[in-house]
Amino acid sequence: MNPIVVSTWRFGLSANQPAWEILKNRGTALDAVVQGVEVAERDPDVKSVGYGGYPNAEGEVEVDAAVVDGRTLGYGAVAGLKNIATPTAVARQVMEKTRHVLLVGDGALTFAQAQGFEECNMLTEHSEKAWKEWKIKQTGNPSDSHDTIGMIALDQNGDIAAACTTSGVAFKLPGRVGDSPLIGSGLYADNEIGAAAATGLGEEIARTCGSYAIIEHMRHGKSPQEACEAVAQHLIARVPTSQEHQMAYIAIDKHGNWGAVAARSGFLAAVTNHTENQLHKGRYFIEET
Amino acid sequence: MNPIVVSTWRFGLSANQPAWEILKNRGTALDAVVQGVEVAERDPDVKSVGYGGYPNAEGEVEVDAAVVDGRTLGYGAVAGLKNIATPTAVARQVMEKTRHVLLVGDGALTFAQAQGFEECNMLTEHSEKAWKEWKIKQTGNPSDSHDTIGMIALDQNGDIAAACTTSGVAFKLPGRVGDSPLIGSGLYADNEIGAAAATGLGEEIARTCGSYAIIEHMRHGKSPQEACEAVAQHLIARVPTSQEHQMAYIAIDKHGNWGAVAARSGFLAAVTNHTENQLHKGRYFIEET
Repeated sequence: MNPIVVSTWRFGLSANQPAWEILKNRGTALDAVVQGVEVAERDPDVKSVGYGGYPNAEGEVEVDAAVVDGRTLGYGAVAGLKNIATPTAVARQVMEKTRHVLLVGDGALTFAQAQGFEECNMLTEHSEKAWKEWKIKQTGNPSDSHDTIGMIALDQNGDIAAACTTSGVAFKLPGRVGDSPLIGSGLYADNEIGAAAATGLGEEIARTCGSYAIIEHMRHGKSPQEACEAVAQHLIARVPTSQEHQMAYIAIDKHGNWGAVAARSGFLAAVTNHTENQLHKGRYFIEET
Repeated sequence: MNPIVVSTWRFGLSANQPAWEILKNRGTALDAVVQGVEVAERDPDVKSVGYGGYPNAEGEVEVDAAVVDGRTLGYGAVAGLKNIATPTAVARQVMEKTRHVLLVGDGALTFAQAQGFEECNMLTEHSEKAWKEWKIKQTGNPSDSHDTIGMIALDQNGDIAAACTTSGVAFKLPGRVGDSPLIGSGLYADNEIGAAAATGLGEEIARTCGSYAIIEHMRHGKSPQEACEAVAQHLIARVPTSQEHQMAYIAIDKHGNWGAVAARSGFLAAVTNHTENQLHKGRYFIEET
């Protein structure tokens, strides 16, 4: 086996480090992605994930997260969760401790509390200031406001997992959920094939179930890179407005190969395995003028 | 064009009637599915959808619904919504009046109120009684507790739409959401190909993005029936526990052909077009002993 972890954006590289420690020491892909993305969740400087994420239009941070276990197609997710800094760990508990797969809103918080997760104030000074400025203008979004972290990993047993976590688009309507916690849209993993994750404007990405579609393209023989490109092309063809926003996909196959694609320049995929630990530009489609 | 509307379960036949009136009179597929499923949402005798649905473990009815507009892959959905009898109409407003696609929990209710939807008590005497009996036993679910209504339609312009609405599995954890409001899982529609919807235990169905997968099988040449069967076989192969529950898929293509499949006997698809208006048994996979 060639264990590997791939995640989205520059902050993915820090998140890959604890994940790789786990993979290197024969730990599981599921542990790797859950503990990996937690780095971004706890980082106040990541404005689009967990603690420090930009709040909704009412000034409350609501987070969404999911895990997929490629061994069983196991799925756990939370959406519209308040006051919990590590939603991916809660999503894993949904998968492992309940007969359900997705808990939303107050019900998700009640569940997290019952599982012993501590509540905290998720709003940093920086995010509160940005929200207050937006409240006055009532227009525009910061450019770093939909950089979801998606992370996909293959471990030494050949097991595959995916995680995705976000505070969602800045100043969203309360209760807004994008693609991130939705299986098949924000993430997918299947031991038979590989894994994929998406980032960008969830409202566009959700429409074509891209992460599931990447797996199916790989099932029919495409490489991770070819599969990502096919899905990005389909989204752009079928939802032309998706070209107005950044969006990106990452994928791995069960042999440890990876791919990354983005609508436009600026996207970075963080790749860590036995031979490298670095950021790569995703191949992009839309030439900027 | 051969307009058609297909929906799930016996109660689908009543729901098809207003939908067919719209299609027959050159109305849109989107209007047809939204107004069609509302019949089941408002029917107190349908224990798995809208008003009269079984409540969650705390005795509160929480509903989930979605629409997909095959013209644009437009998507609108609500989940974990309380006190609103017609969640599919709210889901349509999410699609048409916001820049978002999915609103959950209190945020979904706030949005519905702002759109003028009236709040009501969703718990009928029958459902409250069933819940109180369950509270004492703390085990078991009524067998009619996950019969989601999914409805898919093709109109005379060749436009295609899908809707799916449910109160979810009886006595669920508060905030639990299944496949029904999730694009690609509970429903999908693409004018280029057709539409599909799922019903059954959402926790199993969500794992393989079946509605999206049906569209992709049809894109590659399968009939609606063949596509439903391929997806059901994949789910059963990859998630063996799905055999323990009933689950079913319906599909139409852009020419007005339809298909239906179920894990086991008992599922009915309601089919209405210029030549028929009746219930069909879905072909089923698992022989019962």
